[in-house]
Amino acid sequence: MAAGEAGAEGTAQHRGKVTITEIARRAGVSVPTVSRVVNGRSDVSPQTRARVEDLLRRHGYRRRPAASPARAALLDLVFHDLGNPWAVEILRGVEEAAHASGAGTVVSAIHGRSGAAREWLRNLRARASDGVVLVTSALEPGLYEELGVLGVPVVVIDPAGSPALDVPAIGAANWSGGLAATTHLLSLGHRRIGMIAGPSRLLCSRARLDGYRAALEGVGIAVDGSLIVPGDFRPESGFTGCTTLLDLPAPPTALFAASDQMALGAIEALRRRGLRVPQDMSVVGFDDLPEVRWSAPPLTTVRQPLADMGRLAVRTVLGLGRGEQPDASRVELGTELMIRASTAPPADAQRGRPAPLS
Amino acid sequence: MAAGEAGAEGTAQHRGKVTITEIARRAGVSVPTVSRVVNGRSDVSPQTRARVEDLLRRHGYRRRPAASPARAALLDLVFHDLGNPWAVEILRGVEEAAHASGAGTVVSAIHGRSGAAREWLRNLRARASDGVVLVTSALEPGLYEELGVLGVPVVVIDPAGSPALDVPAIGAANWSGGLAATTHLLSLGHRRIGMIAGPSRLLCSRARLDGYRAALEGVGIAVDGSLIVPGDFRPESGFTGCTTLLDLPAPPTALFAASDQMALGAIEALRRRGLRVPQDMSVVGFDDLPEVRWSAPPLTTVRQPLADMGRLAVRTVLGLGRGEQPDASRVELGTELMIRASTAPPADAQRGRPAPLS
Repeated sequence: MAAGEAGAEGTAQHRGKVTITEIARRAGVSVPTVSRVVNGRSDVSPQTRARVEDLLRRHGYRRRPAASPARAALLDLVFHDLGNPWAVEILRGVEEAAHASGAGTVVSAIHGRSGAAREWLRNLRARASDGVVLVTSALEPGLYEELGVLGVPVVVIDPAGSPALDVPAIGAANWSGGLAATTHLLSLGHRRIGMIAGPSRLLCSRARLDGYRAALEGVGIAVDGSLIVPGDFRPESGFTGCTTLLDLPAPPTALFAASDQMALGAIEALRRRGLRVPQDMSVVGFDDLPEVRWSAPPLTTVRQPLADMGRLAVRTVLGLGRGEQPDASRVELGTELMIRASTAPPADAQRGRPAPLS
Repeated sequence: MAAGEAGAEGTAQHRGKVTITEIARRAGVSVPTVSRVVNGRSDVSPQTRARVEDLLRRHGYRRRPAASPARAALLDLVFHDLGNPWAVEILRGVEEAAHASGAGTVVSAIHGRSGAAREWLRNLRARASDGVVLVTSALEPGLYEELGVLGVPVVVIDPAGSPALDVPAIGAANWSGGLAATTHLLSLGHRRIGMIAGPSRLLCSRARLDGYRAALEGVGIAVDGSLIVPGDFRPESGFTGCTTLLDLPAPPTALFAASDQMALGAIEALRRRGLRVPQDMSVVGFDDLPEVRWSAPPLTTVRQPLADMGRLAVRTVLGLGRGEQPDASRVELGTELMIRASTAPPADAQRGRPAPLS
């Protein structure tokens, strides 16, 4: 697999203690032969190659890369922190599209590190980054302005929904997702449907909640405020929110959680009370993280196309670099309901009687 | 936050259509003033800064980075594919340690792409990468040799366990982990303990299995081969393996799965048969992926210190770059048993009678 990889530029140089001439002398071959080995050409006998490579290794020979002209393109992908369950899905899409364009992906997390954003900007400049994909949670006041001055193209991936920004943003259709999740529960026969909402300061939370409301209103069910509890997208808040709903005088028969992690927390709260999903309570999540395909039970959820969002962000940022204008300042990719095993008709509909509570 | 970030090199140049002189003319300010804005200095009035930045943006001005001398260091982190559940944990550790050393982390996946490894090598050379951290599953025959010739320091992160390599490797203490998982189940009173093993071609699978055997033998229990079923680390194989064990004439009362994903598959198989975890079957996993803290029930598992392995890999590769020798050609970091809610004494011990099977 070595042939043809090093290109024909033949700029073998030395670094460290040993020269290519010295290696040639010790191996008893010509300098061009060593050069062919260094440049990965195939026209060298296996024995000679082995002998030369052994000497190169033993002497710590380093081939200095050709001084440009073909500097490999680099894109920066910036997260607030890599513990975010979205992170790897977005990274998958970004890395794939960047790779397809011959660009490397530099991943950074600037979470809670003093001066991290500043340092990152300095490095970005030193690397001559060709574009930046920022995941919204990484935004800091001032970061845009700095990037604007550097003249590096920027695109934001914004699953959370943010106020309009001065840079192209890629999000997901949150309202439609909330509508689809709730409509699915209604179509199974549920009438008391609880919602564990996301943080109200995020537009995505409000859009998902409004989708839930719209679905109920669409079939003439008045929205019952006591069935809507707040959460922060993390599992703990799903656990607490579900507990609150179970303690109502008339608990819901189904739940829509605005994130998969909250749905998993809710399922654990139900399990602790001896309640089964979906027999005693249906649960729908939002995100479709890879792990929910194997939660117990596998989760019905609204799929956010995170990897697709990453791919589109790369195409957009590379387009900006070529002077192209994006189609719109904000693009929302469609969400999709994934029906698995955590939803079923309500127990009373299944059996013609109220569900047992233990 | 702008002050001081651009350094004093003042090598503002133009790229694209507009010069700094032109911007100065249009803004009605001096060239040095524009230069101060471009270089992020604070000694410009907010009004002037806003006007100049607006013009810079509108004219697509790009500041070319100073030609070295302070090229930002880059480390390459290479996976086979980013769908691997370990990937993000390793990345977290690598990014953190690289960032602390002022290096950027270039993430690549070379999975199943024709010529991807070759292209990656070409880019690595063009970028003048300062070091490579390879996750074992990314290994291809020949890749090492090529890297050796390039003279770029290489460290392997090897959670899977591989035959000894010619480069420093960082792994986890798999045998001890298998021993700890099984000893935990024995201490709860289990005597028939099933094992869903990993692929036997991987040393890590054999080490975990041997740890299981050693724990049983340590308390005088003969290993029953029918209680050991094969898996491939993925959830589907945990599901199938658990089903096989449940169909035995005398099923086990506890299971040790050699990966968290297989443990989740096993839990789903139990749920489908109406069996409860841990009341009817205890389950222990291996990995401690973030999501198993919120599986239903939260999983008892053996923690692999993946982020720590990533951090150590970065320190080792940077040390190699400075000519330091690593402590050993292979280092194994300790694993740790995390006890959660998926393990309990066997039902007969709890109730003084055999566990009901439905």
